[in-house]
Parts: sequence; C-alpha cells; structure tokens
Amino acid sequence: MSEAAEHLDPAAAGPGKAAVTTVIEGLRGQLGDRLSLSQAVREQHGRGETWHATKAPDAVAFAESADEVQAIVKLCAAHKVPVIAFGTGTSLEGHVAAERGGICIDVSRMDKVLQVNPEDMDVRVEPGVRRKQLNEHLRDTGLFFPIDPGADASLGGMAATRASGTNAVRYGTMRENVLSLEAVLADGRKIRTARRARKSSAGYDLTRLLVGSEGTLGIITEITLKLYGIPEAVSAAVCPFASLEGAVATTIETIQSGIPVARIEILDDVQMQDLNAYSGLSLPERDTLFLEFHGTQASVKEQAQLVQEIAAANGGEDFQWTTKPEARTQLWQARHDAAYAAKAAVPGGQLWATDVCVPISRLAECIMQTKQDLQESFLRAPIVGHVGDGNFHVAFVLRPDHPEEFEEATRINDRLIQRALSMDGTCTGEHGVGNGKIKYLNAELGESVSVMRQIKLALDPDNILNPGKIVPV
Amino acid sequence: MSEAAEHLDPAAAGPGKAAVTTVIEGLRGQLGDRLSLSQAVREQHGRGETWHATKAPDAVAFAESADEVQAIVKLCAAHKVPVIAFGTGTSLEGHVAAERGGICIDVSRMDKVLQVNPEDMDVRVEPGVRRKQLNEHLRDTGLFFPIDPGADASLGGMAATRASGTNAVRYGTMRENVLSLEAVLADGRKIRTARRARKSSAGYDLTRLLVGSEGTLGIITEITLKLYGIPEAVSAAVCPFASLEGAVATTIETIQSGIPVARIEILDDVQMQDLNAYSGLSLPERDTLFLEFHGTQASVKEQAQLVQEIAAANGGEDFQWTTKPEARTQLWQARHDAAYAAKAAVPGGQLWATDVCVPISRLAECIMQTKQDLQESFLRAPIVGHVGDGNFHVAFVLRPDHPEEFEEATRINDRLIQRALSMDGTCTGEHGVGNGKIKYLNAELGESVSVMRQIKLALDPDNILNPGKIVPV
Repeated sequence: MSEAAEHLDPAAAGPGKAAVTTVIEGLRGQLGDRLSLSQAVREQHGRGETWHATKAPDAVAFAESADEVQAIVKLCAAHKVPVIAFGTGTSLEGHVAAERGGICIDVSRMDKVLQVNPEDMDVRVEPGVRRKQLNEHLRDTGLFFPIDPGADASLGGMAATRASGTNAVRYGTMRENVLSLEAVLADGRKIRTARRARKSSAGYDLTRLLVGSEGTLGIITEITLKLYGIPEAVSAAVCPFASLEGAVATTIETIQSGIPVARIEILDDVQMQDLNAYSGLSLPERDTLFLEFHGTQASVKEQAQLVQEIAAANGGEDFQWTTKPEARTQLWQARHDAAYAAKAAVPGGQLWATDVCVPISRLAECIMQTKQDLQESFLRAPIVGHVGDGNFHVAFVLRPDHPEEFEEATRINDRLIQRALSMDGTCTGEHGVGNGKIKYLNAELGESVSVMRQIKLALDPDNILNPGKIVPV
Repeated sequence: MSEAAEHLDPAAAGPGKAAVTTVIEGLRGQLGDRLSLSQAVREQHGRGETWHATKAPDAVAFAESADEVQAIVKLCAAHKVPVIAFGTGTSLEGHVAAERGGICIDVSRMDKVLQVNPEDMDVRVEPGVRRKQLNEHLRDTGLFFPIDPGADASLGGMAATRASGTNAVRYGTMRENVLSLEAVLADGRKIRTARRARKSSAGYDLTRLLVGSEGTLGIITEITLKLYGIPEAVSAAVCPFASLEGAVATTIETIQSGIPVARIEILDDVQMQDLNAYSGLSLPERDTLFLEFHGTQASVKEQAQLVQEIAAANGGEDFQWTTKPEARTQLWQARHDAAYAAKAAVPGGQLWATDVCVPISRLAECIMQTKQDLQESFLRAPIVGHVGDGNFHVAFVLRPDHPEEFEEATRINDRLIQRALSMDGTCTGEHGVGNGKIKYLNAELGESVSVMRQIKLALDPDNILNPGKIVPV
C-alpha cells in the first residue's frame, strides 16, 4: 500500500489516499497477482511513445474478461477512483497518463479473436488483439483488416483513438470500420452499441461516439470490425521527386482524379535520410512518395499508369515498382519505422510526432509553409504523412537536456496548428487529443467543446474515466 | 390565437396554452406572414408519407436563416415549447408528428448551395436543399452526391434520419458522407461539429451524434457533404429470376466476391406487378434485381461480366442492359416509385413501409421467411430493398376503414422485426425510429437506450426538441 500512497500527489484533485487504498485492497482480492503495484510496471503504463511526461497510475490491473473490467470499474466508481484503459502504450499525445492517479486497466491479455464471420466480412475481437495478430489470424480466410497506424497497436486502443494510418485514403479510418462496440461505462453498466447489420438508423450513433473518445466515456471490451477481401493484385512503388511541391501536387491530382489509390505517403528529404540510415536502404534522399494500388490485375495496372503520368508531369520520373509480397512488406515496414528512424537520428532524443489534417486543396500550401519554418529553424525534423487524406506529421526529436529544443518545437507546432485551423483543418487528423492537444480544441471547435463536456459529465459525473483528456472537466 | 389554443390537447404533457400563445405572439413579430397558423399548413407539417397519425404543430415557422432558427429555438426554450424541424415531409416513421404540439420550423426555404469546393470534392449547403437540386447544381463540375433515398428529400432531413438508399452499398450512408454540421441546440447555442478536413481525431464525434438524431438533439442549419467524381462509365441492368432465392443468392455472392456494385436492388414479383401498372412498363413480373455499375469502361465491363456469371448460376438469365442516361433514369425512377406504385394498387390506401437490415449471411433466410408470412396472409404487400447492404422493406398498403388490415400488418411487422433482431440485425436500416419504432429499441439495444436518454437529457433537459421520438423521455 505504501508505494501507492506515496505516489499520490497531495496537490492534485485526485481521489484521497484512503479511497485508492480501499480499491487496491479490493482489487487484490479479485485479481491476485494480476494487480501490480511495481513502480516499473506503473511507469510503463503511464506513458506512450512520445515526450509527454510519464504519469504513473497507482496500480495496474491486468484484466482477462469484460466481466472483470466491469467489476474493476464498479469498485473504482464506488470510491471515485480514476480508471485508465491501456492497450499497447503506443499512443502519441499522453493518452494514458494517469493525471490523477487511479487504476490502469491493461487489456492486453484480452487478446482473443472471438468470431470470424467470413460471409459477412466482419470479425468480433477482444480489445487487446493487435492488428498484426488479427491479420495473421485471418490469413486463410482471404480477408484482411486494413487499418494500419504503423505501430502494432491494440484494436481497442485504435478504436478509442479513432486511429487511421497509411491506407485510410482507400478504406477509411476506425470511424468507418467499427460496426459495433461493447463497453463498460463509468457507472459499471455494460452496453453493446449496435447490432452486426452493415447499416442502421436505430437511434443515436453510440458506436461513433465511443470511437475516438479515448477512454473518457467507456472502456471498450469488445469490437466488431469490418473486413475486406484481399485484393487480387497489389502493386507498390517508390517515386522520388525533384521538389516537395511536385510530390504534393502528384498526390492532390491523384485524389482529385478519383484514382482509388490504397496508399499514398509523403516522406521528405530529411525523412529519407533517416530512413536509409535506420532501415539500411539506399533510396534517393529526396522528397518521395510511397504508393500502393489494390484491385484486379487490370485495374491496378490502369491506376499505376495514370499516377505515373501525373507524377511525370510533376517532376517524379523514377518509379521503382514491386509486386512481390516480401519487398512490399520491407517497403512498408520502412515507412512504418519512419518515427523510429527519426528518433534513432538523435541519440537519447524523445519523439514528438505532431499531426494535422487539412482540406486537400490547402495541403501544398500547408506543407510548404511548414517546410519553410523547419528550414529556418535550428531544429531538424522530418515531414511524413498520409497525404491522400490531407494528413501529415512533423516528427521532432528532442534532447531532454536541451530546453531550447522543446521551446522551438512548441513554437513550430503552435504555428502548424494555427495554420491548419486557418485552412479549415484539424489539430489532429489521427493521433487524438490526449492531454497534448486539449488546449487547441476550443480554437478548432468552439462551443462544440462545451457540448462534449456536457456529454462527458452526463455519462461520467465523477470524472473517473481517463480524467484530464479531451475535455477539461 | 384561438386556433392554436384549440389544438392543444389538455391531456397531453405539452406546454400550457399561455406559453404557446406567448411564443406565437413573439414569432409573429419576428416572422410576420412566415408564421402560419392555418390548419391545412399545420396538418401538412404534422405528417410524413405513411400511415402514422397526423399530429399538427400549433404553428409553422418558415425560417430563412440559421440566425432565425436560433431565435425561434431560443424563444421556444424560454417557454419550454416544443420545436420540430421539417424538411420535405418525406419521412416514414412519424418523425415530424408534433406529439406535444409546439412550433414546427420548416427549413425548406433555406435552400442555398453555399459553397462548392471542387478541388476538395465537398459542398456546403443549407438544410432545405434537396438532393436533386444539389445534383443539378453540381452538373457542370463533374461531381455528384450519391446518397439517394428515393424521395427527393431535403439534405437536412436526410442527415437527421441517417438516410441511405439505393447506392449506399457503394458510397455509404449519410453517416459516412457528412463531413460537418452546423446545428442549433435546445438552449439556442449554435455549434459547428467539425472542420472540413477529411478526417479528424479531435474529440467526440458530434457530427455522427447529430446524424440520425432526428431533430431530438439539434436543428441542423448547415451541412458539409462529401462529393464524388461522376464515373467515367455507368451501366445498369434488370434481371428477372426463376425464384426469390436465386435473386437473393446472387446479391449475397456478388457482395461476398467484393465486386464494387453501385446499386443492387431486389423487387419481388408483387412489386413488379405494381411497378408495371404504375410506371407503364412491361418488365417480367418475377422476382427481379435492378443493378448498376460505376467505374472505368474496363472495370464496369469486368464487374458486369462477373455478376452475370453469378446470376446465371442462380437462375437469372435474361439481363437487360442499358448505358443510355435517359433509359437509366427511367429505370431508377421506376425503382424510386416502388412505394408509390404499391400505394396506387390500393385506392385510398395508406402506406406503411417497414424496414429491417440483417448481416448478409442471414439475408436469404430473413427474406424467405418474410415472404412466407406474406404468402400465408390475406394482406398483399411487396418486398423491395437495398439487398447489397442486407436491408429490405415490406410495403403494406392499408385501407383506413379496414382495421383488420392494420392488425395484420402489425403482426407481420412485429414478426419481421423479431426475426431481424434474432439474426443480429436492426429494426431499421434506414427509415429511422421516429415514433413508429421506439418500442423496439430496448429489444435491439438494451442499456444503450438509457445512454441515449442520458445524452438527450443532458443536451435538452426540458425535452423541447422533437419530443416523443427515438427515446421516451
């Protein structure tokens, strides 16, 4: 107990020591050694993959079923102790920081694929199933789950943060691909948000309300996801450009032509330098597009031809094509490692991957102005992004003992977000709000933020579910 | 005043006469002759297109701007007088019935297309813009808005009821195609739910919360919609089958093969009889699929070929193809007139179009059991539906002076909905809840209904926005 008690910050508006102690005693009875008070475990559960300060919970409960999640939440609710859900810890905006202490529910052991319905092209999974595990499981069905945020995240975490990633341009985000959720609410009620029908007009869309709610409205205990047929043909390509403008223009024209590209990713010259170094590649260190096409043999050929023509007109000549699965996997692994590659370029550095999304007509302007900010700065940071959606990232890597780097990243990030908002864009296309972007929500959404707060308080009046995230309560 | 006062049912839990009188006086000052107390106008605004009882509001306000909507809502809120939004009156489940009297806000004069952004493939419209008007407006841009519920509905109404229709199988429903909404809430606050970026993880998805909320959480005053490029090639076909099973099996296999069919609609033999009579066609009066394919010339050809092979194996041989726009328009007009055709077959009859959606693996079973119910009944009713989504309708047409017909339709409808629920389906795929399906929501969604009620009460504590719809409060 003393360890948990020590962790409590008397200045924070968290639960009292006594309440936490009581809950921990109760949970120990229920969970035995699946309740951890170890400092290492607690700290590992109080941080994501970026610079945000670690805020360890008072204890970590490794739940093994929805009923257990429900029991934990009920106990915490009775004592007004915060509850934070944890999947794989790959979030980027401080989502799992235990702002007011409390109990972290780690759902990683709830990792069963419960039911594959190949005829309906859907699957029911527990929240701790990871996306790669799911696709392994599906391998013999001819189906796959396309959403791919890079990290091998849990599907519960992906639903909770409305994740997307490289092929959202073709298949949508978690918003479009969750059919139904089971979740435990702040008062311990367990709800199922929808049936398994592909569409419904039966009342408020609670599925979409929970997708992206970052554990502040409910703890997701089961997810039903749409699946897709593995395309007959897949072709990937890398194309370096003479200029960043040319790569962005190629993206915009591709989207505006209605070509159903499956992936179209930008990596600027800085990112390509880091990638070559990290992944042992020898690609041209120029502003580059990574592309992938899905379809029948004929349609993939048609799409590729059209994009090649668009690229040629924009200074992109040297397409390197691959249709072999291994080579494609290597290519996309390198793309997914972009953030790690950036991080590796700065020994001891901490990642700060920021994220905006703008209407595609403004994308070129938004990226070029951001590139200019970076070129004028002493900070070196790559630009990388899912440009087909108008979404891109700047990956700062900061040395903890260099506060001027943090200040400079803050300045550039603020300018980037103001720029995106001035273009009718959003402060986060896919990383989510967490505690890192709360301060921008009012500028983006105005009175809508007060509506979010009303909903939060209606469903969680004691503010026990992941307090301090999305809306200040 | 006296007319409004007379309309008040002293038994209903509506506002008092005095409150309504005060609001009407105030609105007359603001709106002049754009406030109507005429009985004919009130009654026309208290009913949709089906059998549900007309419940006229106390007055109808023809709003011309979001600011006016806001002023009307504020006045009503101050006196706790109900407010019901009205677009075109084409809803099917009693959505606009003024259960407790109050003020109907008719937004049909808010019919401006505000901004077309061809580069971003989106458009901002007022809620009274109708879908045909929008597509007329877009004609020279090469873009179109695909969602098509049959009726020439207002886009505000389509958003409010989460409408879909014939080509949802390819393009999604209103859920997937609304980028952002402006709405006036019960307390008169005006919010904008999202920016114009294609994706965002910035907080709770208020856009999706309002889409499908049927005017119970807010009055939609502006909508930003996704648009699509008009396909290079479009081809439509009609194919009669030897059996209903064959037509359904063809649908299921088409979807499971991943063929991106744009429309795949079933019309049973009864519907085809009505259609020929109503639309002056001479199509075979057998169970039939109407299909449409969108894409490049090559891909449309490829899709059509594949579906033809699937159909042939299921007893569908005689494809009639058309690529000419006029012939296609005639075909889909006939399809859209299906409900009117059914109605015309019963002089003086009132339409009751019910609507379920099931996982596609259960579709054949669901349709065949329903057909059997109908064959065993003295009621004649066609089956028609958007079967690619697992969604279909039964169109009862009832004679008001034959209560036994109403009882029989109720019995068959109850059985249909229980059947759909037992197959993990929904009691409404696209028509919405209104007051007609409230009683089924608990069976479908259990505790989720109480969450809907909490949200409703948090945002509309006095229950002034379209009371008596979706959730009983």
